[in-house]
Amino acid sequence: MPKTVLTPQSEDFPRWYQDVVAKAELADNGPVRGTMVIRPYGYAIWERMQADMDRRIKEAGARNAYFPLFIPESYLTREAEHVEGFSPELAVVTHAGGKELEEKIVVRPTSETVIGEYLAKWTQSYRDLPLLLNQWANVVRWELRPRIFLRTSEFLWQEGHTAHATEQDARAYAKRIHEDVYAAFMREMLAMPVVLGRKTARERFAGATNTLALEAMMRDGKALQMGTSHELGQNFAKAFDITYLSEHGRQEMCWTTSWGTSTRMLGGLIMGHGDDQGLRVPPRLAPVQALVMVVKDGEGVQAAARRLLSDLLARGVRAELDARVDTPFGRRAVDAELKGIPVRVEVGPRDLADGAVTLARRIAGGKSAVPLGAVVDTVCTALEEDHEALYAAALAHRDANTSSVESLEDAAEAARTGWATIPWSTLGPEGEASLAESSVTVRCLTMPDGSVPGSESDDGVLAVVGRAY
Amino acid sequence: MPKTVLTPQSEDFPRWYQDVVAKAELADNGPVRGTMVIRPYGYAIWERMQADMDRRIKEAGARNAYFPLFIPESYLTREAEHVEGFSPELAVVTHAGGKELEEKIVVRPTSETVIGEYLAKWTQSYRDLPLLLNQWANVVRWELRPRIFLRTSEFLWQEGHTAHATEQDARAYAKRIHEDVYAAFMREMLAMPVVLGRKTARERFAGATNTLALEAMMRDGKALQMGTSHELGQNFAKAFDITYLSEHGRQEMCWTTSWGTSTRMLGGLIMGHGDDQGLRVPPRLAPVQALVMVVKDGEGVQAAARRLLSDLLARGVRAELDARVDTPFGRRAVDAELKGIPVRVEVGPRDLADGAVTLARRIAGGKSAVPLGAVVDTVCTALEEDHEALYAAALAHRDANTSSVESLEDAAEAARTGWATIPWSTLGPEGEASLAESSVTVRCLTMPDGSVPGSESDDGVLAVVGRAY
Ligand SMILES: [Zn+2]
Ligand SMILES: [Zn+2]
Repeated sequence: MPKTVLTPQSEDFPRWYQDVVAKAELADNGPVRGTMVIRPYGYAIWERMQADMDRRIKEAGARNAYFPLFIPESYLTREAEHVEGFSPELAVVTHAGGKELEEKIVVRPTSETVIGEYLAKWTQSYRDLPLLLNQWANVVRWELRPRIFLRTSEFLWQEGHTAHATEQDARAYAKRIHEDVYAAFMREMLAMPVVLGRKTARERFAGATNTLALEAMMRDGKALQMGTSHELGQNFAKAFDITYLSEHGRQEMCWTTSWGTSTRMLGGLIMGHGDDQGLRVPPRLAPVQALVMVVKDGEGVQAAARRLLSDLLARGVRAELDARVDTPFGRRAVDAELKGIPVRVEVGPRDLADGAVTLARRIAGGKSAVPLGAVVDTVCTALEEDHEALYAAALAHRDANTSSVESLEDAAEAARTGWATIPWSTLGPEGEASLAESSVTVRCLTMPDGSVPGSESDDGVLAVVGRAY
Repeated sequence: MPKTVLTPQSEDFPRWYQDVVAKAELADNGPVRGTMVIRPYGYAIWERMQADMDRRIKEAGARNAYFPLFIPESYLTREAEHVEGFSPELAVVTHAGGKELEEKIVVRPTSETVIGEYLAKWTQSYRDLPLLLNQWANVVRWELRPRIFLRTSEFLWQEGHTAHATEQDARAYAKRIHEDVYAAFMREMLAMPVVLGRKTARERFAGATNTLALEAMMRDGKALQMGTSHELGQNFAKAFDITYLSEHGRQEMCWTTSWGTSTRMLGGLIMGHGDDQGLRVPPRLAPVQALVMVVKDGEGVQAAARRLLSDLLARGVRAELDARVDTPFGRRAVDAELKGIPVRVEVGPRDLADGAVTLARRIAGGKSAVPLGAVVDTVCTALEEDHEALYAAALAHRDANTSSVESLEDAAEAARTGWATIPWSTLGPEGEASLAESSVTVRCLTMPDGSVPGSESDDGVLAVVGRAY
């Protein structure tokens, strides 16, 4: 096992995070405070997230479009809670084309307002509904305490925006995105278990009537909100006059939703799966699933490595060759561990003389000799297992660090190292406010069976409380 | 043939363009002057452009990354020509997070400066070179006379940025992108012939030592620059200290390139192939290659349409079903023509009784009865032919509207309706300046055989002159 080059998680988790981001070459700070540069390896992971999420969004019937970065300041003010929620985070363009602007322009913090304007134009009749749109875009929310991927002044995301004829239809669609798109993506691609729930009034999106959230536990016991899906009621429909002519010839008000996931998920991936050797990338997500490494030159070594590479590629494994024998093998192995590449196929003269190679597994750990003829099958099986193993480990970690409590004091105590679940009827908005004084928040309200409560006041509703990023 | 709903091209070409953009539901004006909303159909075309271009860029060895939207104003000023070129077009953020900023922030008009800063960090040794990066991003250049897709204050693009050890290597890479990526993409995906050449000093990118361009003729005889690839010499390397340690242990200055294509290509697509019935989308690019239309209900019609749809999909044709029999068929057919869908498979009770359907071809024109069993093969053949036919038509149009001339007067005359080629030794920078007074520009310098001159002063260099978007 190569020696670690990172601050151990147990010593200083935030420092460990910074180290991984830098040493796995995921991202760097941008020159303007709070912005980030996503480096090629980090971006390759994001691209694979995007591709898979995009497919799922399209399967849910939404179509991609693109709306402008620049929003007239007046648009933001049309929905009262929305402008109040976002005002402190806005970046404002006052000059353009060498002149001072007559109306200030806001750099989009999210696009409900500008998209609302177009939903209003495009929803003429009930035949146009539901109108299901999504966009992949950058947004800007000025951050005072930025942290790469988790809170950056600019981030990349997808934001869905839909208009519906009825409240039920809007609600069902927000739920469909929450469960069939987001939760499924996180489980099946990120190998991350997430708690599904609804936000309390205090934690809701500015302008939503209901916010559905997905919360994951990081390795330090804190929570990360991995995505949200909002019912916006008729708040934006009224503000932007999003109406339609019904089958019965009446002008009706639409119901809208919005939902988003962002580069923040990269932060969740790092902190949810990483260990003291670096990142661990779930195999279905990994840009490189198997790295074929030439340990050192020798009779037939390069040829054997190339043959294994092409055999793996032929079986659909995302494989790469590392034949840089002029760089010490130990250094290259440490780098592959840091980057969390699931499997290394190490090809060296000694093993090869025995007709074997060494398989090193990043997620299960350990090394073993594998006969040349069995490498491809063994790698494929390992990749299958690794996905399940990562998911199981994350779930076990969450369970081990979640306490079921009955009092505010116990909830506060549990939140020092993990999460607590507490009956919402016991905690209530006052308890929530009290916990918030020590930065413990209600991550979401959920049911004991993991389903999402229809309302705060349903019988048995549990609050999941903890510290959060 | 359905009746046209557009202003004819011959009557008012700019109006025709506006009509197509609106009626084919490609895009709309944004609320901030000069910005645009790319609607789902327009975006679906852009997504297919992106996917194919991205594949080609990766094959050329570049890796995707993401750099910030916001650039400190001071970065722009480091390269003298660059800041001079872009200053009039900048959008400037002066306030963020509720405060006035100490240093103004520029919304990126292009990313040479910010990427230069990171190329400097990442190119330590000759082993790091060439460093080949690309990003897909939005950029902002304030436009006084905006026009959707062609000149918008915000547009989407890819911008490549590379650092090399030698001038030869940088030059070869800029040329590789120009020819093997961009020209090949335009020929093979967009079915558009482009003239490859180099820009004159007057038309060069601000900060480049050489700009390679691709120019296409629109249906009104004007030129559109479809993409550019720049050699930046050591201008940005010096400004941002992009150096490396050579094999011989010496600190050396890098040579850099940058290159881009944008949503402008959508404008080129519309104006390069469109006709009085609307858009004509080349089959390889088309989001929908074949639209299976139920003409009207009748015995077995819906079932036959669905079977044809699944047969087409099974053969890899991007097919969709239009079974909206409650909307008049004529209206749906006009819409499909407007959107430029290459093939319509019209399934109606009368044809079906004869075991046939009607195939309507948008690009070749005309309708024919095709036996049910032959539909899939006929569609596949039609799509192949249509690509070639579109390319041939565009090339014939360009040839018919390009005059070989020997004098400034004849060049000006030819540029009233098309292009002129004139020996650069005859025209020269003075002739260029004179033509520019009547908005006729040198689109590029090229060789009689279509190759790109190594320098302005090579024997036989021709200037391609015309009006341009
Ligand atoms: Zn609001
Ligand atoms: Zn410059």
